[in-house]
Amino acid sequence: MQLKVQPLNIKVGKYKVVLNSVDAKELGVNEGDRVRVRDHDSLTAIVDFTEDMISPGMVGLYHEVQEKLQREWTETVDISPASIPKSAQVIKKLMNKQKLTQEEIYLLVNGIVDESLSDIELSAFMTASYINDMSDDETEWLTRAMIDTGEKIEFDTHPVMDKHSIGGVPGNKISLLVVPIVAANGLMIPKTSSRAITGAGGTSDLMEVLAPVEFTASEVRSMTEKVGGVLVWGGATNIAPADDKLIRIEYPLSIDPHCQLLASIMAKKGSVGADQVVIDIPTGEGTKIKNVQEGRKLARDLINLGERLGMNIECALTYGSSPVGRTVGPALEVREALKVLESMEGPNSLIEKSTSIAGMLLEMGGVAIKGQGRKVAEDTLRNGYALNKMKEIIDIQGGDSNVTSDDINAGEYTHKLTAPTDGYLIEFNNKRLIEIARLAGAPNDKGAGVLIHKKRGESVKKDQAVLTIHSEKEYKLKSAVKSAQMNSPIMIEGMLLERVPSYKEL
Amino acid sequence: MQLKVQPLNIKVGKYKVVLNSVDAKELGVNEGDRVRVRDHDSLTAIVDFTEDMISPGMVGLYHEVQEKLQREWTETVDISPASIPKSAQVIKKLMNKQKLTQEEIYLLVNGIVDESLSDIELSAFMTASYINDMSDDETEWLTRAMIDTGEKIEFDTHPVMDKHSIGGVPGNKISLLVVPIVAANGLMIPKTSSRAITGAGGTSDLMEVLAPVEFTASEVRSMTEKVGGVLVWGGATNIAPADDKLIRIEYPLSIDPHCQLLASIMAKKGSVGADQVVIDIPTGEGTKIKNVQEGRKLARDLINLGERLGMNIECALTYGSSPVGRTVGPALEVREALKVLESMEGPNSLIEKSTSIAGMLLEMGGVAIKGQGRKVAEDTLRNGYALNKMKEIIDIQGGDSNVTSDDINAGEYTHKLTAPTDGYLIEFNNKRLIEIARLAGAPNDKGAGVLIHKKRGESVKKDQAVLTIHSEKEYKLKSAVKSAQMNSPIMIEGMLLERVPSYKEL
Repeated sequence: MQLKVQPLNIKVGKYKVVLNSVDAKELGVNEGDRVRVRDHDSLTAIVDFTEDMISPGMVGLYHEVQEKLQREWTETVDISPASIPKSAQVIKKLMNKQKLTQEEIYLLVNGIVDESLSDIELSAFMTASYINDMSDDETEWLTRAMIDTGEKIEFDTHPVMDKHSIGGVPGNKISLLVVPIVAANGLMIPKTSSRAITGAGGTSDLMEVLAPVEFTASEVRSMTEKVGGVLVWGGATNIAPADDKLIRIEYPLSIDPHCQLLASIMAKKGSVGADQVVIDIPTGEGTKIKNVQEGRKLARDLINLGERLGMNIECALTYGSSPVGRTVGPALEVREALKVLESMEGPNSLIEKSTSIAGMLLEMGGVAIKGQGRKVAEDTLRNGYALNKMKEIIDIQGGDSNVTSDDINAGEYTHKLTAPTDGYLIEFNNKRLIEIARLAGAPNDKGAGVLIHKKRGESVKKDQAVLTIHSEKEYKLKSAVKSAQMNSPIMIEGMLLERVPSYKEL
Repeated sequence: MQLKVQPLNIKVGKYKVVLNSVDAKELGVNEGDRVRVRDHDSLTAIVDFTEDMISPGMVGLYHEVQEKLQREWTETVDISPASIPKSAQVIKKLMNKQKLTQEEIYLLVNGIVDESLSDIELSAFMTASYINDMSDDETEWLTRAMIDTGEKIEFDTHPVMDKHSIGGVPGNKISLLVVPIVAANGLMIPKTSSRAITGAGGTSDLMEVLAPVEFTASEVRSMTEKVGGVLVWGGATNIAPADDKLIRIEYPLSIDPHCQLLASIMAKKGSVGADQVVIDIPTGEGTKIKNVQEGRKLARDLINLGERLGMNIECALTYGSSPVGRTVGPALEVREALKVLESMEGPNSLIEKSTSIAGMLLEMGGVAIKGQGRKVAEDTLRNGYALNKMKEIIDIQGGDSNVTSDDINAGEYTHKLTAPTDGYLIEFNNKRLIEIARLAGAPNDKGAGVLIHKKRGESVKKDQAVLTIHSEKEYKLKSAVKSAQMNSPIMIEGMLLERVPSYKEL
């Protein structure tokens, strides 16, 4: 059917067209069906219906379709019904718990990357993945398909080191220490990371305080070859782009299907050519991994998948029920990390975790003997090599390498939350802490966040400051303070938690 | 945040707004999040992002939001982040196979009806329903919620009869006979039906050849009270509207979750106040119900759900591997049905099935004694009472009651498919038959369809006509014929199907 084009200059993130219901009926297509759009070029697009927006005899082409057809305007295009895509049948197979073939998984991932699957199909795919999970074979193919549908970085020399932290623990700024420690010891570590979606600051949000983080894959490669390490945003590199597109679906459903979690992590590591990887699995209440058993299972699955992909994986189950260090939010976290690099001054939790993870990598990379990795990492911090390496990384990414921790300013609007009574801090709610930092403006406002004066198990006096909320904007500070007061992230009690009746009777 | 309004005069079927990414970041909302839009009135809308379509400081309001706020234009509105809707949590519970409460199910169904759930959420709901199914309690609540969120018809007198056919068998025009037979015997039968989505003609598409089918719920009630029966399109009445909205999601995924199938049927029957219902379950290859075991299970589930809702359900497992009667497509089917009403001339399969189903209803309604229903139904056909009743129904719906079967014209463009050889018709592919009728233009072009000269098991001579394809348009006929020639819906072989080697040896 020849239809006149009506351009709709709206980006919808998919190939979509709008037909008047009259023409749609004549063509025999239903809402959600695909049509073939033929001009000089041709493509398949998803159909929306309208009764009035587009007149009969016309077809509305959204931005992406116009762009693909490479014309601003064309008099008419030919529209014909297209059959139900094979990908929809594959999704149904997954729903029915039937095993998918490698070819079917590539078909799906291609459909995800080229935006040809509708939100309805993508959501069904993620939901079925969540409920039915995938076999080891399928998960391997999923990972390979994610790697193959994006850009890949290949280094001439090996090993290539990498690390990843499973999210959920606030203030987990360890990459800012691990990467320079590892690179300072002569290993390559092209660290890509994410921006926070639900957190108070991803590694990219943090690093951006010091230098630009958006680079192409080939820039990541050449920078890494020059200085040994980088700290860049994965989203700019076009490595494993399927993952970013799936996050769009996972986020509103607040699900993270097991097979997708595995594939997402390993695809990013595989895409940068990493072959020696440490994965930090924060475990405990308030994190994604509720207990050690679950953490061990995830570790085994990651190690197994790594083996299939030719990567050596080691996992570290870490304590996740309390923040790492004493800061949450980009500028505050960067200041804390820089201070450790400058002088090894800083919270034990941060230094211990960073040197442990870095030490594992040093041993895996063959630059520290078994059992000595952590000590080498500490030495690298102490002798200033890690600081120098961090300055090189900041410099090559286009930041100011003369920066010191004193230069990093947190938001000027502050409010102290104080202890209502003498006692011990017995509970620290990770999720609430992140929510408060986000209300204060993190991660978008770099200066927003929370400074932690007292941590779990520490004693406080009445009216002593426990947390300081920082914000760049007064109205955001107010909103964060209000939220913290209504539902406190901390709980303080006397050392004697409970007086059991039998105690008296003894 | 105060933002200037930019109206987007596009209907998207949901409450949606578009924010510039800069403002979205400032607000701390991600794509797929909700925001509260406050003007004089207020509502919650789903957020889309744009880099360029909407400038920072502005918010794009789609048609539905503008309409809800009841203003064509307003200078500014206040936009603030809204929390993740409870419905998303309920969907996650269903994914986790946790039991839902009645309140949670009502929350979901309300969200479906008022369009506040996104496609991503709706698809996750349907996928989780498909994989995990629902308990009897949950299915009952789902049905009740579907009934309660739409219009209800209540009759002063009872019983109120109804019938429903599970889809999948071509040419199933029996409602055109069952409704007048039942109504002619003094019972009320307010039959609502659907239009075909994947079929060649729903009962509504058929009835529309004779009379208008779009009426409000109160019109359905008063017409039924006057003449005993109607044949109307359910979509116009606003009964159980949730069902229509879910079909939008089921269709592209080609799934029909068991609990949704049950709820969908029973909600429509419950909404019209029916308390005595026969459900026709066509069973066999090419239908939705592959075998008798599956059919019996569905029957038990329907009867059980009916009991919970205070409805008496009887089910008929019917032969579904071959079309009912010898016509497929609106006009052809109507002509065939009218001929039976006029003279009891017509295919046995149609007359037997219609009188059997009608007979069950007559017995359930207490106007035929047990075992005599079918005979009473046949008598009602034979003595012309059913024809007269059908004329009354056509008349009250605004059609021409003087219509006869000779007045009904099939499409003028025709092509005969002939037998390539002498033999017996051994296979008849239901799905292919429907596809060919659809390519010929059905159900939108009323004259399009397929006339069946020979059915399964009948003998044919070489070059004898087996099927005639009718179309209103030459190009559609060509497309249907081409498809039929490439992949024939029929197979003809000699009576001896196979010569087994051992046969010779005997």
